[in-house]
Amino acid sequence: MGQRILVIGGGAGGMGAAGAALGTDPDAQVTVFTEFEDAAYSPCGIPYVHGREIPDFERLFLATKQQYVDQGIDIRYETTVTAIDADAKTLTVEGSAIPYDKLVIATGWWYRKPDVPGADLSGIYYMKNIRNAMEWDKVFDSTKKAVVLEAGALGLEITTALAHRGIETHLVDPTPWAMSMATDPDIAKPVEDSWTELGVHMHFNTTLERILGDEKGAVRGVVTSAGEIECDLLVVATDKVPETTLGSAAGVKTGSAGGFIVDETMATSVRDIWAVGDCVEIPHGVSHIPWQGLSGSHAYSQGKVAGVNAAGGSRRYQPVYVPWGLAAGKWFIGGVSFSETIANALGIPYVLGKAQGISRARYYPDVKPVIVKLLAEPGTLKLIGAQLVGGEGIKERADFLAMCVRTGITIRDLATMENVYSPAMGALNEPIALAAQNALQNARQSSGS
Amino acid sequence: MGQRILVIGGGAGGMGAAGAALGTDPDAQVTVFTEFEDAAYSPCGIPYVHGREIPDFERLFLATKQQYVDQGIDIRYETTVTAIDADAKTLTVEGSAIPYDKLVIATGWWYRKPDVPGADLSGIYYMKNIRNAMEWDKVFDSTKKAVVLEAGALGLEITTALAHRGIETHLVDPTPWAMSMATDPDIAKPVEDSWTELGVHMHFNTTLERILGDEKGAVRGVVTSAGEIECDLLVVATDKVPETTLGSAAGVKTGSAGGFIVDETMATSVRDIWAVGDCVEIPHGVSHIPWQGLSGSHAYSQGKVAGVNAAGGSRRYQPVYVPWGLAAGKWFIGGVSFSETIANALGIPYVLGKAQGISRARYYPDVKPVIVKLLAEPGTLKLIGAQLVGGEGIKERADFLAMCVRTGITIRDLATMENVYSPAMGALNEPIALAAQNALQNARQSSGS
Repeated sequence: MGQRILVIGGGAGGMGAAGAALGTDPDAQVTVFTEFEDAAYSPCGIPYVHGREIPDFERLFLATKQQYVDQGIDIRYETTVTAIDADAKTLTVEGSAIPYDKLVIATGWWYRKPDVPGADLSGIYYMKNIRNAMEWDKVFDSTKKAVVLEAGALGLEITTALAHRGIETHLVDPTPWAMSMATDPDIAKPVEDSWTELGVHMHFNTTLERILGDEKGAVRGVVTSAGEIECDLLVVATDKVPETTLGSAAGVKTGSAGGFIVDETMATSVRDIWAVGDCVEIPHGVSHIPWQGLSGSHAYSQGKVAGVNAAGGSRRYQPVYVPWGLAAGKWFIGGVSFSETIANALGIPYVLGKAQGISRARYYPDVKPVIVKLLAEPGTLKLIGAQLVGGEGIKERADFLAMCVRTGITIRDLATMENVYSPAMGALNEPIALAAQNALQNARQSSGS
Repeated sequence: MGQRILVIGGGAGGMGAAGAALGTDPDAQVTVFTEFEDAAYSPCGIPYVHGREIPDFERLFLATKQQYVDQGIDIRYETTVTAIDADAKTLTVEGSAIPYDKLVIATGWWYRKPDVPGADLSGIYYMKNIRNAMEWDKVFDSTKKAVVLEAGALGLEITTALAHRGIETHLVDPTPWAMSMATDPDIAKPVEDSWTELGVHMHFNTTLERILGDEKGAVRGVVTSAGEIECDLLVVATDKVPETTLGSAAGVKTGSAGGFIVDETMATSVRDIWAVGDCVEIPHGVSHIPWQGLSGSHAYSQGKVAGVNAAGGSRRYQPVYVPWGLAAGKWFIGGVSFSETIANALGIPYVLGKAQGISRARYYPDVKPVIVKLLAEPGTLKLIGAQLVGGEGIKERADFLAMCVRTGITIRDLATMENVYSPAMGALNEPIALAAQNALQNARQSSGS
């Protein structure tokens, strides 16, 4: 009998851990518990099915259940773990104690629930589970007016999706612009402008005060600090809160961002328990502040690290620099690390550079603007943050700039970067290089040389 | 009277130098001589007008002549410089001696002329000058069969363009696969496959022996080492040979790649003479071998460096790592530095990694494959070369990998890179990271650990 490795959670982190554990120790007995009917579909695709960019939910599934059986991973669907006993090294599942040698917690996140009257009415959509999303998708066919609460990444995606569905969409957010935790207003502006074109109504600096219900207990509107908005539907897209209930009850320590604290092996404070994905927090490589609410790609990588280590191998996870990106309105938007706004809030000094370039040759069909904003550390001129908005190559540039931040590449390096020039794919001057040249000028001026 | 800065050549290098010289010393008298009717259009766009991706030649012009006048750059169009006197510091132009304080040579390149009988027949197209291209474009309307000589970057572009025009196109190349100086056969294969779909006839390992003419002295076919091919038109797309006649006669030294030798300020061996663009050679940052025939982006950057230095400022150019890329068939293809084939030829040892990833989420419309191949230095595991072929983000990835080669980033760094994950723009696993993970495995196996 091989070692018993149990995983709580069937998302990207949990399935990554299960696969890596078996890859490291083929004799291990690997079992995954999930409260849902499915494992390893892509929840990230849901807003794009709602928006009709993707024709159906079925294609979001990554593997058939049989494939996991063939791989040797035992998945217990619709099975809720109710307790972890870290001393006895057991899980409580449907009243029975199931022993483990090693445990990986991948319990994910849930939306911060609006703390206002009316939050328990029907007609409030928390986009997350795919079966649930399939039901809501039918509701959208008869929805006329919707309110989306908060303009984070998920809020941006669902706002765009509802607008594409022809629903009158109101975005309500307490901060002054879209994705204000990651962007500056000049970067968010093209997205906001394209929402205006799509007919989206934006209500920034606006707080939700109450959700109004009709006689059947269904949402009929919201009251905000800026007045009342009628709606058939409220989509809650608030911050992701780490789901740590089970682990915390078992004594696993959480940190200042609310996630489990893990070391570089993804091990928690409790022996033989690892944690991965949206239920953990990870130090940011520049600010050293713990971050949570990262991407499915992060969860999957963390899962692989935890799975290897849980099974007896050795693998390390790195601090994160958090390249991010998404489609919003008619643009792609993305970045790395933090914005000017957040640097100011954290008291991190920086040199700024900004430029607008183009995605291909000026005369090539479908050429689009690419705006790049860079933050560098004064003195060393090392890159510490970036934001991008535009038509193409935003993801690849964000990945590139994340590696630059991680390895200490400077705006001096970027100002003299070589770039591909070919009309159909890239312009004479790479927008990153133009922004870096601008930052160098600003650095020279501020140092008075 | 300010200093007299003369520039020979009105391409990207020459115009970059002229603009930078004036930017550095607004009192300078900057004059550009070009034998052509135009300056600063984009010759790189010509194949895409031929292919009808770009609707007309007019949009390839970057600026009106008046804009240069307004900027203070005096351009002498259709004016041929016939000699440089480096002792007297004069140019001979239309029989007169024109004095200079500083000179920038940006005379560019010309195709290696086929050394076979029939090379002086009519019906042979050397794609380069825009006015000439406009005339040839009309000829294509009645062309039925064309032969393209050699499968370098320009050969790939014109082959794709002619196929898009519905012309039966034969590509003749003495080497075994497309772009064999920069690619390996596995990277070139998707491009060759898509040419097959477009109806292109490929003749690799095939040498041109003779060009056949009709009674009017026009091309009617070619004789190759593999037999005769009938055609109405021959497009010569051989290597770019540095145009160094004027400079060499004035004593400016050329190097092993046939271009002017320059130092890091772009200064030549002769006092007060700089050279930039396709007429120079630049050391490659990894192999230290001089390279020539780079891109318009390189020429423009070099022009700026030479212009600043010629005008009395100070700026340095770096060794090159040569990110490249282009549209070919239905794919984009690109790379950095050199291929496995060239590394073998140069005796440079390497660890190899390769992976096929995808450009967006597996289920998102228009998802395309992205194949990445990486070469790393054994031991240090620093990246030394890369090739890519696929649907999207090839240019941005090549730019990224060029910076990695230049700054010593390793495949260990790339194997653990963070990446943006968002269905419309990027997949869970970045193809570069997958290729780096494969390279790490190969490195471990070859070191026996």
